[in-house]
Amino acid sequence: MQQRPFVPDPAICRLPWYLACVARLRAEGIEYVSSTAISKQLNVDASQIAKDLSYLNIKGKTRIGYEVVELEKGLIDFLGFHECHNAVMMGVGSLGAALISDSGLSRYGLNIVAGFDVNPLITGTIVEGRPVYPLESLATQLPRLKAEIAIIAVPVEEAARVARLCVDAGAKALWNFTPFHITAIPGVAIQNTSIYAHLALIYNRLKDSNPS
Amino acid sequence: MQQRPFVPDPAICRLPWYLACVARLRAEGIEYVSSTAISKQLNVDASQIAKDLSYLNIKGKTRIGYEVVELEKGLIDFLGFHECHNAVMMGVGSLGAALISDSGLSRYGLNIVAGFDVNPLITGTIVEGRPVYPLESLATQLPRLKAEIAIIAVPVEEAARVARLCVDAGAKALWNFTPFHITAIPGVAIQNTSIYAHLALIYNRLKDSNPS
Repeated sequence: MQQRPFVPDPAICRLPWYLACVARLRAEGIEYVSSTAISKQLNVDASQIAKDLSYLNIKGKTRIGYEVVELEKGLIDFLGFHECHNAVMMGVGSLGAALISDSGLSRYGLNIVAGFDVNPLITGTIVEGRPVYPLESLATQLPRLKAEIAIIAVPVEEAARVARLCVDAGAKALWNFTPFHITAIPGVAIQNTSIYAHLALIYNRLKDSNPS
Repeated sequence: MQQRPFVPDPAICRLPWYLACVARLRAEGIEYVSSTAISKQLNVDASQIAKDLSYLNIKGKTRIGYEVVELEKGLIDFLGFHECHNAVMMGVGSLGAALISDSGLSRYGLNIVAGFDVNPLITGTIVEGRPVYPLESLATQLPRLKAEIAIIAVPVEEAARVARLCVDAGAKALWNFTPFHITAIPGVAIQNTSIYAHLALIYNRLKDSNPS
């Protein structure tokens, strides 16, 4: 059995960029690409790209570069985007329902199998083909659904409580879209995707360029 | 006129967490909070919190801490979440439509005024109260809409082209939700919010804890 290579988090975050770039080249029928060419498209240093790919044991050929099809396959395999990962959506409001219907996520292997909510107008319905269950049934439903990932899209004031319920029900990963920062929980992978933090960065850069 | 303080990007990204935490305390009727108490809720070092807030000239009182109402106001003011920032949604597919209807964004000052799309089944319709215009009308519509921010939620293979069209039409900030990494453009604030990068991190952590 081959050992899974260790790749640092910042490199993992860059791998999907390389994948998006390479998938585009493959669609255009391009066979080989150099790290310099990827570098120009993504504005990432070419030596950084070569280093990131070397973690995955992907090496380019001198003066030819990387084989596009092979590079795409290597990235998809390492990233796990070809596998199916079951997930549940905690909170089926506007953002939760949107993420359920985002075909981008399913293309990257995320299979949202059900939603959970406290709103009696939503529970018992089907949203984008997925059943929405009442929150109090989480502990019995989660193991049955074989879902390891819980996506948290509840109102911010409910985030801490819902995260705890998910972990108690057996979730192995929490993907948190609320502005509440969920802290480390032993044995659970936590990813806070604070889109509001990025909004703050944008506003700040706009102010710097348009001082009032 | 008071000069706008310089705050490093990583600190700006943490400010919305503090705001979410403080808003919760205010809703619970709590008057004062120490950096240690915020630290426990967010799992951020207390000295880091005090340092981040000092950039904004917000200082706590010895043995009492920060006044919750004042801290919330200081954070909202600095972050610009109380102002109204007009934006357009490029691509009104599932993710675009979802972001339009996400009330979290409007609560943080983002006013999405219109959408643009190439699909004739969508253009000319109203989505969540916003008109959807054909992409080719962007150059004439953007200045009229007084929108500085373009949110990019088109298919990945269209991202580079649409970003360029937005900048040519006068957009001052691009908020990119596609997995394509948009590179630096002089005079334009760019924020790549790659939710797929976070998906890659989650899968990787799950594999590390469940080696097959």
